[in-house]
Amino acid sequence: MLSVIVRSALTKYRGLRLPSQSVVRAMSSSGGPTSPYTTLAISHPVESITHVELHRPEKLNAMNKAFWSEMVDCFNEIAGDADCRVVVVSGAGKIFTAGIDLMDMASDVLQPQGDDTARISWNLRQKIVKYQETFSVIEKCPKPVVVAVHGACIGGGVDLITACDIRLCTQDTWFQVKEVDIGLAADVGTLQRLPKVIGSRSLVNELALTARKMYADEAKSSGLVSRVFPDKEAMISGALEMAGEIAGRSPVAVQGTKINLIYARDHSVAEGLDYMATWNMSMLQTQDVMKSAQAAMEKKSPKTVAFSKL
Amino acid sequence: MLSVIVRSALTKYRGLRLPSQSVVRAMSSSGGPTSPYTTLAISHPVESITHVELHRPEKLNAMNKAFWSEMVDCFNEIAGDADCRVVVVSGAGKIFTAGIDLMDMASDVLQPQGDDTARISWNLRQKIVKYQETFSVIEKCPKPVVVAVHGACIGGGVDLITACDIRLCTQDTWFQVKEVDIGLAADVGTLQRLPKVIGSRSLVNELALTARKMYADEAKSSGLVSRVFPDKEAMISGALEMAGEIAGRSPVAVQGTKINLIYARDHSVAEGLDYMATWNMSMLQTQDVMKSAQAAMEKKSPKTVAFSKL
Amino acid sequence: MLSVIVRSALTKYRGLRLPSQSVVRAMSSSGGPTSPYTTLAISHPVESITHVELHRPEKLNAMNKAFWSEMVDCFNEIAGDADCRVVVVSGAGKIFTAGIDLMDMASDVLQPQGDDTARISWNLRQKIVKYQETFSVIEKCPKPVVVAVHGACIGGGVDLITACDIRLCTQDTWFQVKEVDIGLAADVGTLQRLPKVIGSRSLVNELALTARKMYADEAKSSGLVSRVFPDKEAMISGALEMAGEIAGRSPVAVQGTKINLIYARDHSVAEGLDYMATWNMSMLQTQDVMKSAQAAMEKKSPKTVAFSKL
Amino acid sequence: MLSVIVRSALTKYRGLRLPSQSVVRAMSSSGGPTSPYTTLAISHPVESITHVELHRPEKLNAMNKAFWSEMVDCFNEIAGDADCRVVVVSGAGKIFTAGIDLMDMASDVLQPQGDDTARISWNLRQKIVKYQETFSVIEKCPKPVVVAVHGACIGGGVDLITACDIRLCTQDTWFQVKEVDIGLAADVGTLQRLPKVIGSRSLVNELALTARKMYADEAKSSGLVSRVFPDKEAMISGALEMAGEIAGRSPVAVQGTKINLIYARDHSVAEGLDYMATWNMSMLQTQDVMKSAQAAMEKKSPKTVAFSKL
Amino acid sequence: MLSVIVRSALTKYRGLRLPSQSVVRAMSSSGGPTSPYTTLAISHPVESITHVELHRPEKLNAMNKAFWSEMVDCFNEIAGDADCRVVVVSGAGKIFTAGIDLMDMASDVLQPQGDDTARISWNLRQKIVKYQETFSVIEKCPKPVVVAVHGACIGGGVDLITACDIRLCTQDTWFQVKEVDIGLAADVGTLQRLPKVIGSRSLVNELALTARKMYADEAKSSGLVSRVFPDKEAMISGALEMAGEIAGRSPVAVQGTKINLIYARDHSVAEGLDYMATWNMSMLQTQDVMKSAQAAMEKKSPKTVAFSKL
Amino acid sequence: MLSVIVRSALTKYRGLRLPSQSVVRAMSSSGGPTSPYTTLAISHPVESITHVELHRPEKLNAMNKAFWSEMVDCFNEIAGDADCRVVVVSGAGKIFTAGIDLMDMASDVLQPQGDDTARISWNLRQKIVKYQETFSVIEKCPKPVVVAVHGACIGGGVDLITACDIRLCTQDTWFQVKEVDIGLAADVGTLQRLPKVIGSRSLVNELALTARKMYADEAKSSGLVSRVFPDKEAMISGALEMAGEIAGRSPVAVQGTKINLIYARDHSVAEGLDYMATWNMSMLQTQDVMKSAQAAMEKKSPKTVAFSKL
Repeated sequence: MLSVIVRSALTKYRGLRLPSQSVVRAMSSSGGPTSPYTTLAISHPVESITHVELHRPEKLNAMNKAFWSEMVDCFNEIAGDADCRVVVVSGAGKIFTAGIDLMDMASDVLQPQGDDTARISWNLRQKIVKYQETFSVIEKCPKPVVVAVHGACIGGGVDLITACDIRLCTQDTWFQVKEVDIGLAADVGTLQRLPKVIGSRSLVNELALTARKMYADEAKSSGLVSRVFPDKEAMISGALEMAGEIAGRSPVAVQGTKINLIYARDHSVAEGLDYMATWNMSMLQTQDVMKSAQAAMEKKSPKTVAFSKL
Repeated sequence: MLSVIVRSALTKYRGLRLPSQSVVRAMSSSGGPTSPYTTLAISHPVESITHVELHRPEKLNAMNKAFWSEMVDCFNEIAGDADCRVVVVSGAGKIFTAGIDLMDMASDVLQPQGDDTARISWNLRQKIVKYQETFSVIEKCPKPVVVAVHGACIGGGVDLITACDIRLCTQDTWFQVKEVDIGLAADVGTLQRLPKVIGSRSLVNELALTARKMYADEAKSSGLVSRVFPDKEAMISGALEMAGEIAGRSPVAVQGTKINLIYARDHSVAEGLDYMATWNMSMLQTQDVMKSAQAAMEKKSPKTVAFSKL
Repeated sequence: MLSVIVRSALTKYRGLRLPSQSVVRAMSSSGGPTSPYTTLAISHPVESITHVELHRPEKLNAMNKAFWSEMVDCFNEIAGDADCRVVVVSGAGKIFTAGIDLMDMASDVLQPQGDDTARISWNLRQKIVKYQETFSVIEKCPKPVVVAVHGACIGGGVDLITACDIRLCTQDTWFQVKEVDIGLAADVGTLQRLPKVIGSRSLVNELALTARKMYADEAKSSGLVSRVFPDKEAMISGALEMAGEIAGRSPVAVQGTKINLIYARDHSVAEGLDYMATWNMSMLQTQDVMKSAQAAMEKKSPKTVAFSKL
Repeated sequence: MLSVIVRSALTKYRGLRLPSQSVVRAMSSSGGPTSPYTTLAISHPVESITHVELHRPEKLNAMNKAFWSEMVDCFNEIAGDADCRVVVVSGAGKIFTAGIDLMDMASDVLQPQGDDTARISWNLRQKIVKYQETFSVIEKCPKPVVVAVHGACIGGGVDLITACDIRLCTQDTWFQVKEVDIGLAADVGTLQRLPKVIGSRSLVNELALTARKMYADEAKSSGLVSRVFPDKEAMISGALEMAGEIAGRSPVAVQGTKINLIYARDHSVAEGLDYMATWNMSMLQTQDVMKSAQAAMEKKSPKTVAFSKL
Repeated sequence: MLSVIVRSALTKYRGLRLPSQSVVRAMSSSGGPTSPYTTLAISHPVESITHVELHRPEKLNAMNKAFWSEMVDCFNEIAGDADCRVVVVSGAGKIFTAGIDLMDMASDVLQPQGDDTARISWNLRQKIVKYQETFSVIEKCPKPVVVAVHGACIGGGVDLITACDIRLCTQDTWFQVKEVDIGLAADVGTLQRLPKVIGSRSLVNELALTARKMYADEAKSSGLVSRVFPDKEAMISGALEMAGEIAGRSPVAVQGTKINLIYARDHSVAEGLDYMATWNMSMLQTQDVMKSAQAAMEKKSPKTVAFSKL
Repeated sequence: MLSVIVRSALTKYRGLRLPSQSVVRAMSSSGGPTSPYTTLAISHPVESITHVELHRPEKLNAMNKAFWSEMVDCFNEIAGDADCRVVVVSGAGKIFTAGIDLMDMASDVLQPQGDDTARISWNLRQKIVKYQETFSVIEKCPKPVVVAVHGACIGGGVDLITACDIRLCTQDTWFQVKEVDIGLAADVGTLQRLPKVIGSRSLVNELALTARKMYADEAKSSGLVSRVFPDKEAMISGALEMAGEIAGRSPVAVQGTKINLIYARDHSVAEGLDYMATWNMSMLQTQDVMKSAQAAMEKKSPKTVAFSKL
């Protein structure tokens, strides 16, 4: 349903610049979802990099029931895949995502089960907690996740991208915290993460309370994204290049950095430092430090070093 | 006293652009404070929107004794007023506010009572806690508060606006964390909220430690305000329009959003998500979701929906 | 070693604009480290202002063993020096700092002692905790610290400046969170403080995970620094002027402000307010309030007031 | 209703030993509630001691609507009454309290208002928060509160006494966390405070999950009460004597102790110590230290010292 | 291995009083583990009560690899089983459990994999986190868990029982925090939960640092267990009776109580109250309140009420 | 002064049973303070055990200026002494300690310096923070500290022992939270640690608010001490035996246990578990696990194993 709404919105949105289809094809392994997934296409454009593509382009990548559980399986698998060092997330088709597929989810969200209000509430809470996990797995996965957004990123899409580590977008992208338009407070991450992701609280509140669109320029100046690209093709190239930079460095260093950055967000500086010291008392014993230092002395890039898998 | 200081500062401040008087009049219900208040003018420019105007224009809206308690009464009343869905705060006269009216407050702050240092301290602490409540009520009020600042926002004014949800200003506005100039560390909210409201800690520290003025452009680029308007008239229109957007949406969604955004600021992401799930297990059972979804399917704005009062 | 690497990098870095040597000389008391320090030059360019200069210019101010302990002694002394009200930190020579001097530190970091992994870890943890203190002392020192960065600020340099209160830089400065290049997660402060210092989490993650350089303009727009100066001479003047503004105000107000701003960063707003009230119940009893108010009434700057030492 | 249930329970409870009526009369100022209260009798058996008596003996002091708001008014007044240094709370009649008066409260709790589930929830939450305040005021009141329990302490009674500072009971007392018997999780304090008041978590869980009665001996050995008296008369004497000990000491010391003990419960040791230092930096400047030290040197009790009011 | 050690210890432990075999048989459904488990026997002695029996009696219920994952599956299933309202945990055979089965776990714990220290550490951390989950599932399961301990509860056994809600034991039981004897700090829960389960920190430290045995009497007086029974038969009866009391009450009340008790342990009182209010705003709308109140008015036990499943 | 008061109190205290002088002599290396200390006698009764004796017996071990700084030096040295694995603390002479030596401390505490109230407060706060450190070093020292108390433990003595890990006392000991008698709230640890050390909050409040004495039996039943001995001689033997048990076990296990127990006290269970896993990912790689396991298989005590120093 929401996808229907968005589609009609897109019709009105004249500025939409479609990315060249070749890029989309290039990035998805087989032009469609990858077994065992029906909504995600997984590929490995380069060694050590996993590309996760939201892939229901005909539905504007609206998040249906399958999506909410496939994301968990997908990122749990990535978390345990020693061959993967970085993840790139993008969306197939016209836009990144239209957000929750209300049509498909309606029975879950709009017709909750239970003998009385308490029992309906109990069941709803379990569902919400489960849906929250869909994006929290991105954060729990120790490999950095670069998300590349194009076209539009609506509702659940904002929940998704705020759980990623690095956000990129194309010049034609708009973002929308859509939930108040549907009569609910966003409950799968946007309200918790967006204020810790961008620096202007006034803007966060405005976006969440009015559901207005934010375009690429404001997304850049507010810090939601750290880079804007002219089109999807350039962005995907940029995302892969950035992912390559990360993948080329010591996974002990990179993944320890992600874990401690997230820990620091949720703790005082003193607590973050204590945890960091306890973390690094073992991690500094990695051979990667010696290997990296050696490369540096020889004026080689760390990317020339062969690091063991983690 | 502080208002005296500021007034002389304003004399020197050549760039001050006075808003057209018609706007000020239009916004205040009766051209002055509204019973039972002596420093606040309350009006209802549009259904569901409450406009609170700081209204001691001849004193540059300096915050006298009455103000500190009237704000608490006013926002407690608003919190309980089911007819109000959004609040707009602005200042009458030349500037938003000159901050604390030291002349009127001197006996409280400068001549504290008590038989010995401990007892004076005890009494001072009770006063500070009481004054802090003056602005914390804004945050505790579940209805979003849009503050529209013009001219100047000094000292206590910054404490006030950082407790609001959305900040707007005119091009001619300057902001000043004035307290160090009076020999004290700001103690009613600025030091606690400003760093969580704007994204540059270096700037926060500079403002608080040097008491320098910050003008509209820097306020915008730093994220203190999310929009700058050419003049007060345009700003008030803009504030009302924005308030209208918010007031037109489900109050269950809007007020739940405010409450959870504030909760998220003060907690880890994991704790924020847990609270959110517990909140929404009942709130998702609102009819507003169905009504909003129905409107969306019919391509109507959520503002066309008649939501029950909250 | 790292200094070697950086030096070669600088050779390639064509845009480096050297500050006039006269400024550097003017700022360091005797053209070199000040007894009892071998890596720091301490001077008092103006009453109440202490200037701490990283002073191993021939090594690009790389942080050797001596540096890590001298910083602690230096800031502990400053904390207890009633004649000092503000600190300015800068670097002698071509750049601010090349970061950790891996050559000198290698035995500590790369050849940790211990009979088994647990004991090596135990010893490493003690070292990390000790090194963290090198920058935490800046934060624990109640006097505001303004840091003026030029040329380059690499690795440990970012850990250092994020612990300062106000950050300034020259137009030719670049910043680099270097640690992942050496195979380790930054463990002396950057990962804990950088996300609380600038407003874009996407940018923080990008910098920490890719080790890319960030130049002055992005440092300014992201809020890492609050001012950019054309060259080092102008920056040092600007830093001293800003320090003078702070030093001229009540030390009770200024140092109470710093302490409470740091407390607020690590606590909820409610807890910060409670602490603030408890702090000010005594601090408001200072004569500085009366003196400052008196000056204000007489339209004098607070800088004309003679405040007692703190 | 609950009082009905309890009364029938009491009929079966053979061991109930009625306190001599003279004591009850002696303690309540006029043999009944004190204006402006209808459920509380306030008296001042000794200077500096306020006695608050739950006084609906014919209803077993069941907590009706009036009670929930009168407690707030009562303790707010006590908090501001410089003549009061300690509070003793007890119950008139056969038992301390039968807990919530469901009959009187039914419209509030059992027939909540609202147009849909979300709005009913919203209203219920406001009520719960208000009822929680009824007991939290005891904790927010800086004067120590000694509660003397006899006969039975049921449901809301446990919520009440866990918010007090010192708990005493008679040998014939039983305690009951009654809420699960009525189909609800205790929501006005027991679940939050009981585990922090007694040392056995297994016992806490057993009491809260089975609603079984706990008798005086187990209340003593588990630490719920710190003293058990043979009968109500002895207990009231004991409570007054203990209150006298407290009232005779410096109110700066005593009230600072209560505030910091409660702060410590809710914070880490490091945070508690920091708050304590900030608290005492002013409070140590009281004349009470000198007066108390002087008395000690002269081998006099601190109770002989005349301390200023606080 | 540890089981070997313990067995020899038991040989020396003369006081061991074997429970009658009939009880053990009665409680385990089929005299052995229940499909799909190899270490757990699951039965339903009474409607709504699930009995989980550690069932490797020939190995003294030592915790082998299968056990660590079967517990997670088992309690996840129980959490989702609407027919279960309470869980009883006990051990088959001579003792409750000898703790970790080091022989079976050796490859995991003693021979960790990885190319260097950092990678070994990384893998070990994942294992520890996984093992911690084995007992945390007990806490995350909203149904109360009563654990009935007999004979001996060693090492991992203490980790297990401190995650349960109510602890019972026989007179012949001893408890031992065994880990320091094996050269490691307990890392799956004892150090985190034991201090919050019993009231004497001195005792907790003594037990954890010396690995001395604690017998039933001290377990009772310190609050580790809330009841001691003469033998296993009596204890199982008692456990079932207590479980029956809990199972007979409203599951909305009971499970909400467990969830909020655990929340309260880990939060300040103010935060616990806030969460509680948000929880109960929906849960109070259960029909169970009406049904329970009705029963109470009719002087019936809540156990006579038919509550809907949760 | 306080020592004077206490001495006269002791004169009245008839029950005082003096320990045999031979024990005291045996325990202190040279019958008096050990260079460089004037208030502490340090000895090494057994390898790996350090005995710290409060040693101003003629002043009842009252805590004078020297004591407050010597404790810090002493425990910092112990923390870094690889030959020490456990610490025993006791008092020389008639009683454990009379608490703060007000006579000697008067200039610090009673005559604080500063030009105005704020500056006096500032200086007082620094002193309090310094004095708090005197006992916090005990907690920061990773070696377990067993404290053996005899006779009396007053005021500062309670602050001291609550920072120790295990508390023992003789039958003739009384404890007194003395501070309210001197007109101040205890500010060096008692209010923060006592409630987390014993399980009855009612008792904690009673002790802190009335300054009444608590005798050995209540200290045992409340959990303040975990063992009571008939006299000092037996207690010292018991303390050494217990210390020997701890010293004989793996220092990696023992010190990791202490550190994590303290961490757990100040954090939620989830956070404690996370820290524990991060701690043990390296510490489990110690050879001590293998050595301990080997000993266990051979039925030898862990005390027979030769562990490397830590």
